Amino acid sequence: MTLQQARICIGCWQQMHLPVPLRGVLSVPFRAVGIRPSKMNPNTCTVCELMFTRVMRARKITIDATILFADLRGYTTLSQSLSADAISGLLDAFYDECAGAIWQYDGLLNKTIGDAVMAVFNFPIQSEDHAKHAVRAAREILKRWRIERETLVERFGLAGSDLGVGIGVSSGELSFGEFGRSHRDLTAIGTVVNTASRAQSAAGSDQILVTQDVYQRAQSDLAGSQAKTYQLKGFQEPIELYAA
Amino acid sequence: MTLQQARICIGCWQQMHLPVPLRGVLSVPFRAVGIRPSKMNPNTCTVCELMFTRVMRARKITIDATILFADLRGYTTLSQSLSADAISGLLDAFYDECAGAIWQYDGLLNKTIGDAVMAVFNFPIQSEDHAKHAVRAAREILKRWRIERETLVERFGLAGSDLGVGIGVSSGELSFGEFGRSHRDLTAIGTVVNTASRAQSAAGSDQILVTQDVYQRAQSDLAGSQAKTYQLKGFQEPIELYAA
Repeated sequence: MTLQQARICIGCWQQMHLPVPLRGVLSVPFRAVGIRPSKMNPNTCTVCELMFTRVMRARKITIDATILFADLRGYTTLSQSLSADAISGLLDAFYDECAGAIWQYDGLLNKTIGDAVMAVFNFPIQSEDHAKHAVRAAREILKRWRIERETLVERFGLAGSDLGVGIGVSSGELSFGEFGRSHRDLTAIGTVVNTASRAQSAAGSDQILVTQDVYQRAQSDLAGSQAKTYQLKGFQEPIELYAA
Repeated sequence: MTLQQARICIGCWQQMHLPVPLRGVLSVPFRAVGIRPSKMNPNTCTVCELMFTRVMRARKITIDATILFADLRGYTTLSQSLSADAISGLLDAFYDECAGAIWQYDGLLNKTIGDAVMAVFNFPIQSEDHAKHAVRAAREILKRWRIERETLVERFGLAGSDLGVGIGVSSGELSFGEFGRSHRDLTAIGTVVNTASRAQSAAGSDQILVTQDVYQRAQSDLAGSQAKTYQLKGFQEPIELYAA
């Protein structure tokens, strides 16, 4: 499935009822002043990214949101034996499949770092179903990647490599905004973010682990999933995670 | 020490002998077309960030460079008991001290993710001494953070928390450029990057660990440092790291 491209910015429309053209002739004057599709989600604009600073007059806001971390397994080991071309081919493909799946469910691809991506659901495009959207995006990542990696395994001669994906998803209140004063950086911060990251580390190859909070919100998508107890790094109490 | 602010972009001057004004009246027309100080290093400009695509006509280049990862210890544990204000105060301060130290030695603050920062030395501002610069920046981070955290411990009542910093530094050839086609992202990729990240994980609180390659290049700064053998995650062979 390809991404349906919005003609106006969905974030600005939802939050301010402003029609900001993203594509076509009407978008030309907007582009001239730096308003263009966001790199983090092409159906929102560069104003959205900073909406809370400009419109809400706050550097950070507390929002209820869902965080997704996805990580390419075996990448560190693999990259020692691969050519630079093969490594970047692999990452290009992985980032692209993740971006496609995340945008399909209105998420914001907030960060890529090495072999991992981090996405936020419920900002700037809002939806009550953000936990469900994140779970569906996670499944879509696995689905797309299973197809894509067969091509890659053949193209780069990687038979026998892991190349699976581990995913962690967590929902709840977190801080979203600009951190750092000299180097400003838009991101999400808080225990919800750390939990999603640790759940991703605990996930097996091609496994999605979600927190209890996500399970409760996306129950209709997760029927029959059993909780298992995990001891995550940095967390004093053991935590229950559900395979999605 | 505060950062000396360059009046023209150091990257454009070094690589193309073009004087691109960053500050003052002369910079106004440049800013109007989107050329302004880079968020990753305020002494370079937004053109530099993409220099290889525009000027070199490549999406990625292979360069000899040094990578630094710094990570705030105890952050996951701490953030479970802290208020959102305290967490963001802590991260604001940590990012800022890291940025100051990295820019002082001409590095590029490429990524912040959660409690970690990643910096690249030798692009766009080039220097033969990039390994030495990275080691000095690492020491400067520890020095600045020791002072800053005393204030923070008092301000947020954090007595007894770790709040140390672990740093890993690695030098060598890596791919630098834009990865991903739909979500384009400027970053460095390769074993050198993975090694720096793993060395950071292996480092103790307030410790800097550097690879043999860094040790050889920055020997005059590292007299008396002894190698220890580490088994890093994802690496089949044990690796020697030096405390800097």
